[in-house]
Amino acid sequence: MTKTLLKLSCPDRVGLLSCLSGWVARHGGNLLEVNQFTDVEASWFFARMEIETETLSLDLPGVQAAFEPIGIELKAQWTIRPAESRMKVVILVSKLGHCLADLLWRWRSGELAFDIPCVISNHEDFREMVERERIEFLYIPVATGNKEAALAEVTARLRSTNPDLVVLARYMQIIPRAVCEEFDGRIMNIHHSFLPSFTGANPYQRAYERGVKLIGATCHYATAELDAGPIIDQEVMRVDHFHLPADLVRIGRDCERLALARSLRWHLNDRVLIHGNKSIVFRD
Amino acid sequence: MTKTLLKLSCPDRVGLLSCLSGWVARHGGNLLEVNQFTDVEASWFFARMEIETETLSLDLPGVQAAFEPIGIELKAQWTIRPAESRMKVVILVSKLGHCLADLLWRWRSGELAFDIPCVISNHEDFREMVERERIEFLYIPVATGNKEAALAEVTARLRSTNPDLVVLARYMQIIPRAVCEEFDGRIMNIHHSFLPSFTGANPYQRAYERGVKLIGATCHYATAELDAGPIIDQEVMRVDHFHLPADLVRIGRDCERLALARSLRWHLNDRVLIHGNKSIVFRD
Amino acid sequence: MTKTLLKLSCPDRVGLLSCLSGWVARHGGNLLEVNQFTDVEASWFFARMEIETETLSLDLPGVQAAFEPIGIELKAQWTIRPAESRMKVVILVSKLGHCLADLLWRWRSGELAFDIPCVISNHEDFREMVERERIEFLYIPVATGNKEAALAEVTARLRSTNPDLVVLARYMQIIPRAVCEEFDGRIMNIHHSFLPSFTGANPYQRAYERGVKLIGATCHYATAELDAGPIIDQEVMRVDHFHLPADLVRIGRDCERLALARSLRWHLNDRVLIHGNKSIVFRD
Amino acid sequence: MTKTLLKLSCPDRVGLLSCLSGWVARHGGNLLEVNQFTDVEASWFFARMEIETETLSLDLPGVQAAFEPIGIELKAQWTIRPAESRMKVVILVSKLGHCLADLLWRWRSGELAFDIPCVISNHEDFREMVERERIEFLYIPVATGNKEAALAEVTARLRSTNPDLVVLARYMQIIPRAVCEEFDGRIMNIHHSFLPSFTGANPYQRAYERGVKLIGATCHYATAELDAGPIIDQEVMRVDHFHLPADLVRIGRDCERLALARSLRWHLNDRVLIHGNKSIVFRD
Repeated sequence: MTKTLLKLSCPDRVGLLSCLSGWVARHGGNLLEVNQFTDVEASWFFARMEIETETLSLDLPGVQAAFEPIGIELKAQWTIRPAESRMKVVILVSKLGHCLADLLWRWRSGELAFDIPCVISNHEDFREMVERERIEFLYIPVATGNKEAALAEVTARLRSTNPDLVVLARYMQIIPRAVCEEFDGRIMNIHHSFLPSFTGANPYQRAYERGVKLIGATCHYATAELDAGPIIDQEVMRVDHFHLPADLVRIGRDCERLALARSLRWHLNDRVLIHGNKSIVFRD
Repeated sequence: MTKTLLKLSCPDRVGLLSCLSGWVARHGGNLLEVNQFTDVEASWFFARMEIETETLSLDLPGVQAAFEPIGIELKAQWTIRPAESRMKVVILVSKLGHCLADLLWRWRSGELAFDIPCVISNHEDFREMVERERIEFLYIPVATGNKEAALAEVTARLRSTNPDLVVLARYMQIIPRAVCEEFDGRIMNIHHSFLPSFTGANPYQRAYERGVKLIGATCHYATAELDAGPIIDQEVMRVDHFHLPADLVRIGRDCERLALARSLRWHLNDRVLIHGNKSIVFRD
Repeated sequence: MTKTLLKLSCPDRVGLLSCLSGWVARHGGNLLEVNQFTDVEASWFFARMEIETETLSLDLPGVQAAFEPIGIELKAQWTIRPAESRMKVVILVSKLGHCLADLLWRWRSGELAFDIPCVISNHEDFREMVERERIEFLYIPVATGNKEAALAEVTARLRSTNPDLVVLARYMQIIPRAVCEEFDGRIMNIHHSFLPSFTGANPYQRAYERGVKLIGATCHYATAELDAGPIIDQEVMRVDHFHLPADLVRIGRDCERLALARSLRWHLNDRVLIHGNKSIVFRD
Repeated sequence: MTKTLLKLSCPDRVGLLSCLSGWVARHGGNLLEVNQFTDVEASWFFARMEIETETLSLDLPGVQAAFEPIGIELKAQWTIRPAESRMKVVILVSKLGHCLADLLWRWRSGELAFDIPCVISNHEDFREMVERERIEFLYIPVATGNKEAALAEVTARLRSTNPDLVVLARYMQIIPRAVCEEFDGRIMNIHHSFLPSFTGANPYQRAYERGVKLIGATCHYATAELDAGPIIDQEVMRVDHFHLPADLVRIGRDCERLALARSLRWHLNDRVLIHGNKSIVFRD
């Protein structure tokens, strides 16, 4: 069985779900899973539908064309795509490889289905780890003095690759505001704190100094403002007075891996819809 | 704004959601929240819809009558009721009052909206706690030798009260099989272990002896088989080697309170649908 | 069996544990539990010892007198007291009673052993809840214009009562800086956010606006700086996009109750040692 | 700074901690961390001490020889070893590689310090993953008919390697009772359920059928009785009605990885002491 995913958000009005499910039914579609949410305050409607592809009376382009006028009428943002199509995900990393290694394992084992056109890093540390998976490793060093040029090179590469998603898997360079805007909703960052606590640098050291009893990690979309984009998932673990900053770093790695892996999974399955500064996540 | 709740389960077929949401739309209903689940293995469909009552073109009896033929056609089990109607909940308790006290607080503060026709206990311990809330307290002692008669009296009282739900809030008597069947899906029990571990008596002592590192509580519907009914919610907390059975009892109390309060909330809001030995829970 | 609790912190040096445990042994004391922590960075030593009282060759004043010279030599802060002595705890509350109700239940049921000389509130809402437990309820209204006078009255009452601990159980007035300093380490506050996120007012509303996926509560000692004192415990629960601010408030109540109850328990059992802006907590 | 670890358990008596810490002090040792626990019911004493090696007046053999008579007098089980010495850990795996991959990453990155003399598997699947780390991969197939011979070969290899620990990282063969006894306390198994729920085969399928709302994993020492040995750590995650057995398997993998990695860490650092069917774990 293959699946077709419809993801949609639009201004709220009466009868939207009936309109959408009726449209699916008219094309013979068997609904496997439906998620719906109305943000009453914003008066906005969000939906995700999983349709059994074989039951649809049209092929994919036909379905998309048939939905076009409805999307226009509803003033909707929408996508329809086969669940089996694999997103292109570029991964950026610096010197901490736990998230990269975790994603590579989930990718290789098939737990997460996506393609990795390349891994970009400002260090050479993970060339072997990447290349032995037969993935291109792109070394773009960032030194004081060449930051702008280096990030322009990264951006150029992103443009030419045109990925569905960019994952900042502990990439310790700040992505320029203009790039965040250009790839709006397509850059996922894992921040090593429980946001909005400890935005910016050295969150574990600052968590240690504050004496918190729980540490965490936050996966969010990167926006122009640092660490302020829509949150997709967060994870926390308990710590004690005897944990030194190095312990927080170690324990936090597991938070980061879990929050990033879940967020990526949901993004790959069209389960995340962004609205303003928030994420609607139809978890699975 | 008031709300009308439609809860339904029926054999699966194509077009069910379209049928239901179309029906709501035809009667002018504005859908506030929709939850849907298809158990592919059992080929069974489950849905819950929150409709803005004021938008419906019919009053409650009208709506119910209008749905009648659809329910028959779909071979569905269904209810339509105002979200504001308060369920009648009888609480049974023995000598441990933490769950009772917790429910009374949530009830009195309005966190949970329901009515308590009476509290039944086989001990006098909580008479004052109950009566000061102006709730009837019914003492039905259970002694060896009179068990059957006592439980018959409890049952008679349940029959005459005809509650929407019976909560066994640490009632340490086994409800007879026939009563479980008579009140099928209407008896909620909080068991002081992480089921299916430690069914039956003294779970904390046995958890201690086994040396588990997490203890828990399980809220489930009572069925003929002890501690084997559909699970609604579970909660766990970490324990260590230095925790004695009395510590597990103490820590477990918080698990029990949380799991019971959440489960009751979902039941009161028609968020739990039972199918065979499982609960479908549309959490909020 | 009764227990004597020794709590101590002092500058670190070699042989401290040997010194302390040797001292206990010389007075016949059987150690039931020993906790020790060295803050290597601060070069500070922390210990807590539970001694079987009956095995000690001296009575309490004798033991305290015998320890006096050691305390001086080690430049230590220390206390020796019977575990059975009950601390005097004054509770302050405003219009949200869930923490108060929770503490009253744990107190009445004996889960937590302490005395409550009085409950102070700037509202009358909980008079009945308090007085029916035969606890004095003190109504000290705080209106714009009389804030200073009202808080002076609260302070006077605290001075005359001389409690071992003051619990701010959702008391929505800011305790004056001077009072925090006067009762240093003796005022426990439950803050309704996961600190250091959302210090100050309306944390749940702000958590909603930020779109966090976990909300929490923090129990800490009040210091001159608002919501910046030593953290004792924190608790979090998952939330979703469909949770409105009122839902966060509701879910957060359970976080607050749990974090406060645990923190109070540890404080009552001399399990919390404060050093600078951090708490060393020897959990049980 | 290097560290010497003293781990000890013995029958309880008055003055044990004083005796041990006094002994350390007499040899000039600076105690960095001390953990102690008395099982009052069993009247047994457990301790772990971290000593700054450079402060000791004797070298390792000297220290061990000096402790010998104390160990005898206390009828203690004890070890003294440098924290820096690396344990030899043999890993066994079958066809599910997530735990193996996780351990390899933690090993390679230095998060966990140990040596891997070889990985043994009854399948060829992970030869490349292991050999590219320059670790010996030993393929010992187990077919119906040759089970005994195959497990004898595994056992022979374990004997010749004489590892400090054997990790069953989802090795789907039952280790013979005699081998469990021979390597008592040195075989660590990760079981894919929250024990004592779902011992034996197919726990995720059975968890699905039971409709549990939390799934988990348990790391324990293997003993003669299947899945009944001392538990070191457990981890759980929430699941919902819409999770199929394959989802439980996926979510459970993260539970397994976390519980195993933490347990291994504690074992490598001499933080786990076994007594009867329980583990005393001095967590870090």
